[in-house]
Amino acid sequence: MDIVIPIFPNFTALDAIGPYEVLRLLPDTKITFAAAAAGLVHADNPALAFDATAALSEIDSADVLVIPGGGGTRAAMKDEAMLEWVRRIHATTRYTTSVCTGSLVLAAAGLLDGLEATTHWAQVALLESLGAKYTEQRVVQQGKIVTAAGVSSGIDMALTLAAQIAGEDRAKAVQLIIEYDPQPPFDAGSPSKAGPRIIALTGELDEPVAA
Amino acid sequence: MDIVIPIFPNFTALDAIGPYEVLRLLPDTKITFAAAAAGLVHADNPALAFDATAALSEIDSADVLVIPGGGGTRAAMKDEAMLEWVRRIHATTRYTTSVCTGSLVLAAAGLLDGLEATTHWAQVALLESLGAKYTEQRVVQQGKIVTAAGVSSGIDMALTLAAQIAGEDRAKAVQLIIEYDPQPPFDAGSPSKAGPRIIALTGELDEPVAA
Repeated sequence: MDIVIPIFPNFTALDAIGPYEVLRLLPDTKITFAAAAAGLVHADNPALAFDATAALSEIDSADVLVIPGGGGTRAAMKDEAMLEWVRRIHATTRYTTSVCTGSLVLAAAGLLDGLEATTHWAQVALLESLGAKYTEQRVVQQGKIVTAAGVSSGIDMALTLAAQIAGEDRAKAVQLIIEYDPQPPFDAGSPSKAGPRIIALTGELDEPVAA
Repeated sequence: MDIVIPIFPNFTALDAIGPYEVLRLLPDTKITFAAAAAGLVHADNPALAFDATAALSEIDSADVLVIPGGGGTRAAMKDEAMLEWVRRIHATTRYTTSVCTGSLVLAAAGLLDGLEATTHWAQVALLESLGAKYTEQRVVQQGKIVTAAGVSSGIDMALTLAAQIAGEDRAKAVQLIIEYDPQPPFDAGSPSKAGPRIIALTGELDEPVAA
């Protein structure tokens, strides 16, 4: 099974690595990180770059397409070559997926028109302006299109896909291998749980929420 | 604050990226991915390589040291230059941490002698053979040494650290930014929850548990 993860400058690494770490443990899987040009692509922190081993133009199909989010999605949304590539690959996929603001790219490509979808909580209005119907769920599936909420939700999304692709037992085995038995020390992972004071604090971080 | 994440061939990407994605959102933070030599370092899947921007020899101190796990820890445990570097940096840290089998490297460096610690569930015996006292908890803190269980547990560990470094409110804001409101579709993230049948299945995957 061919899993393709397109990356672009200022992508969020965990958006990509959550699904990667789950899906790579499925049988007969080949993962490809691809970019406009092969070579280093910097994440949304200058400390980190991934090596894209293929140019988008070299890729004609995917069984699973995973589009990560990050501040760089604002440029990707306006990159007609990227959007055309997304539409072309989508025509070949078994699943077309996104994590966080990756759904903005799907929406800009016209793939979410009238569909329920999710995104990072801070970018809901932008997603809706592009024709999707925002749904406050962590993982939203509409046929073969699966969108996940912010950043870490890609792990939950990928485990959901893993079960559909390889069966529940295999998905559970993958969950066990990555020891995904989450025990966050706080219960502040969504706007409603965090409350207005913590939401306001996210705007004061050194890196404001571009998500 | 200087966060240093040493990487080595066959490291597990999520072990590194979980803490990275949390800690990079703390104030005045600089992250460095370092390796034996600067340049590309492949993860435990050939699809993925990170760019290490510094050689270990260029790094003399760290406020937070994060050692990821992966099959490559078996070689790292026997790499005297790596172990000597870990000991040297540990002498300068505010926190010395590991995710998954990264704790085997700490143990091999002699830093866990007689201390409580954790690791990936499949490598408990190896950890104990190196002098640590295995503790079945997701995050184990012994003074400034903090070890986390398998792979995804690095997110929980880093949020715990974030609160100690920058206060609970800031840690909660980071949790909200990465929308860490986990909703795994199954409850199979630990051996006791998964049960013997799923544990056995992990041995049949294309990539057996090297963790």
